[in-house]
Amino acid sequence: MTYVTRREHFSAGHRLFRPDWDDRRNEEVFGKCSNPAGHGHNYYVEVTVAGDVDPETGYVLDLKELKSVIQSRVLALVDHKNLNTDVPFLHGVLPTTENIAIGIWKQLVDHIPQGRLYQVRLFETEKNFVDYRGED
Amino acid sequence: MTYVTRREHFSAGHRLFRPDWDDRRNEEVFGKCSNPAGHGHNYYVEVTVAGDVDPETGYVLDLKELKSVIQSRVLALVDHKNLNTDVPFLHGVLPTTENIAIGIWKQLVDHIPQGRLYQVRLFETEKNFVDYRGED
Amino acid sequence: MTYVTRREHFSAGHRLFRPDWDDRRNEEVFGKCSNPAGHGHNYYVEVTVAGDVDPETGYVLDLKELKSVIQSRVLALVDHKNLNTDVPFLHGVLPTTENIAIGIWKQLVDHIPQGRLYQVRLFETEKNFVDYRGED
Amino acid sequence: MTYVTRREHFSAGHRLFRPDWDDRRNEEVFGKCSNPAGHGHNYYVEVTVAGDVDPETGYVLDLKELKSVIQSRVLALVDHKNLNTDVPFLHGVLPTTENIAIGIWKQLVDHIPQGRLYQVRLFETEKNFVDYRGED
Amino acid sequence: MTYVTRREHFSAGHRLFRPDWDDRRNEEVFGKCSNPAGHGHNYYVEVTVAGDVDPETGYVLDLKELKSVIQSRVLALVDHKNLNTDVPFLHGVLPTTENIAIGIWKQLVDHIPQGRLYQVRLFETEKNFVDYRGED
Amino acid sequence: MTYVTRREHFSAGHRLFRPDWDDRRNEEVFGKCSNPAGHGHNYYVEVTVAGDVDPETGYVLDLKELKSVIQSRVLALVDHKNLNTDVPFLHGVLPTTENIAIGIWKQLVDHIPQGRLYQVRLFETEKNFVDYRGED
Repeated sequence: MTYVTRREHFSAGHRLFRPDWDDRRNEEVFGKCSNPAGHGHNYYVEVTVAGDVDPETGYVLDLKELKSVIQSRVLALVDHKNLNTDVPFLHGVLPTTENIAIGIWKQLVDHIPQGRLYQVRLFETEKNFVDYRGED
Repeated sequence: MTYVTRREHFSAGHRLFRPDWDDRRNEEVFGKCSNPAGHGHNYYVEVTVAGDVDPETGYVLDLKELKSVIQSRVLALVDHKNLNTDVPFLHGVLPTTENIAIGIWKQLVDHIPQGRLYQVRLFETEKNFVDYRGED
Repeated sequence: MTYVTRREHFSAGHRLFRPDWDDRRNEEVFGKCSNPAGHGHNYYVEVTVAGDVDPETGYVLDLKELKSVIQSRVLALVDHKNLNTDVPFLHGVLPTTENIAIGIWKQLVDHIPQGRLYQVRLFETEKNFVDYRGED
Repeated sequence: MTYVTRREHFSAGHRLFRPDWDDRRNEEVFGKCSNPAGHGHNYYVEVTVAGDVDPETGYVLDLKELKSVIQSRVLALVDHKNLNTDVPFLHGVLPTTENIAIGIWKQLVDHIPQGRLYQVRLFETEKNFVDYRGED
Repeated sequence: MTYVTRREHFSAGHRLFRPDWDDRRNEEVFGKCSNPAGHGHNYYVEVTVAGDVDPETGYVLDLKELKSVIQSRVLALVDHKNLNTDVPFLHGVLPTTENIAIGIWKQLVDHIPQGRLYQVRLFETEKNFVDYRGED
Repeated sequence: MTYVTRREHFSAGHRLFRPDWDDRRNEEVFGKCSNPAGHGHNYYVEVTVAGDVDPETGYVLDLKELKSVIQSRVLALVDHKNLNTDVPFLHGVLPTTENIAIGIWKQLVDHIPQGRLYQVRLFETEKNFVDYRGED
């Protein structure tokens, strides 16, 4: 068993708020992340696949293929987008780092070309990041 | 003459578009940066002050004071804000990295506690950055 | 189960030596880390909390609260301090990276506002770091 | 149980190709990594040792000793070398990141001075890395 | 006058040696960089353009265009190549970091879409880099 | 004219205080940097040499020689030392980042094997750094 990780980047806007709460409650819970006009981040995502090394190629999987899946199923949908309004796989979901990471996991888990998805790590900033491994 | 730099961080949203252009022209010029719902970045700003070392303190200037000026005159106005709508010193300005850097320069140039402002470097991402030194 | 990490920084001085050993033995075991006048580091600490995502907030825990606990129970006690002499939670302990990480774990484990402490990672330099997960 | 990691660096050349395949098949599978004249990378390797903290020294192991083992059993053999032709422990092996990481594991696993080898992480670039923990 | 920088990456192989010297002299001058089978690096290049901010777009130049010029005139020629044998603009040149930086400058200086080329910075590793500004 | 930079690292302890001031004045001016038991940092120093590229070697200077001068004239004197008490070239000098950078400049300026010293950049942390170019 070997673990292969690919790191990618996207920039996106978001705002933390619940439409079923009033502004005061939103600000109380989400603070400056609830600023009505929104803000944004440079997100970095690290996708880890676990599997055996193929004796023919020396690869767990071809990173070009992994990169291509991340591109089509994640980056194309979130890069330079607003995570509250523009992203189908986040509709109805508060775009916290936790929920975005889980959303990315769901986008990828059935589309890994070889091996199995082991972890999605999502950095919101250099100081805050979230890991999700599909555990209940 | 010695140069002292302080690096700070803010997260903000923006959109590149000119209201006097139609959507097609905006998209033609600004591409995905013109996405109507906006996006955002983790900006890093490096503020450099040039001056002589004070023989009494061994400082060009007290970094706590520089940090405090950057905090009150820049970060408090841009962090977790939308650069198109929320920031007085950017009103009427397209929030490109170039224009934000120049705006930060103007906010700081007359408020450096000791020495003189030498450069503002602004990173939009790890791969794109702008330097402004007040040169015409 | 989701894992949320917050990275923080402190600068501190230390010296590796045992008072019950003579200088030669200390230097033999600890080398230049035993220099009598001490030295120091920029430490980076990454605190990871494991928990379920709260469906109401989309958070495992509010990072502002985690940051505040790390601030009051760790950073306020170690930043710009001497780890041999100034830090109550390290009294009588050799301030190796391992022991500082374990000390930080103990400071935090019963004070995590939501979820449970999963790991403390402590970087002494960019090339040396230690992970502690409370395992015996 | 505590985990101690040391990060080291080497620069090396490599080419991905199988001599039992023709050039077209090699290029089909390995793409530009199969360029006949070779290319290369700055590799970073992070070696993690798991063990108990020695109450006498406060160390899991002396990092100087770990560094010395990595130097003699890995870096001396790969730094500024061609991984296809110059490295005994990679003879007959396709020098993918996966296989180099496994090769480094085998070079180290029986030579850890204290504790046991827990993981080898190998970065081929800042965006691609592999973890190997000796698991079948 | 504002300075805009774009950072890009390529991986390449090289060997430092002069064919008009024998092996001993080559090794004496270039040390392990002269290893006959070659080695390689992850190079990072930062291209800086100086110019005035266009009042219409807020740009010194469109980074998409700069990126495209760097791609076609530099990266396409050096990425995953051997710098001694595969790169027309380096033929007959010792591929030291200095000479590669100067070669990149020459490839770009007459092809900057707006403004003028101010500096090429080339990192061979995180610890070694070269700046060239076209000065005699 | 080409500029070549070498980055090196050292860890050291220091305390900002003037013996001719009482504790209250020291704390007023230097804040927590004046903590009596001292603290420390991981310093990074970037030494830049300017010169012409030697047509015979393709080098401005041999980095192994530059590294060796930095090692013997700077790192050997400051690494794992206390900058207030252990370093001859800082005796009688307040060890601020500014003064340490100027001290390093003086240690190196007459010992550069080829070309001339252009700049010393010293990072005290990732957020604070100083540049000195020998200018009055």
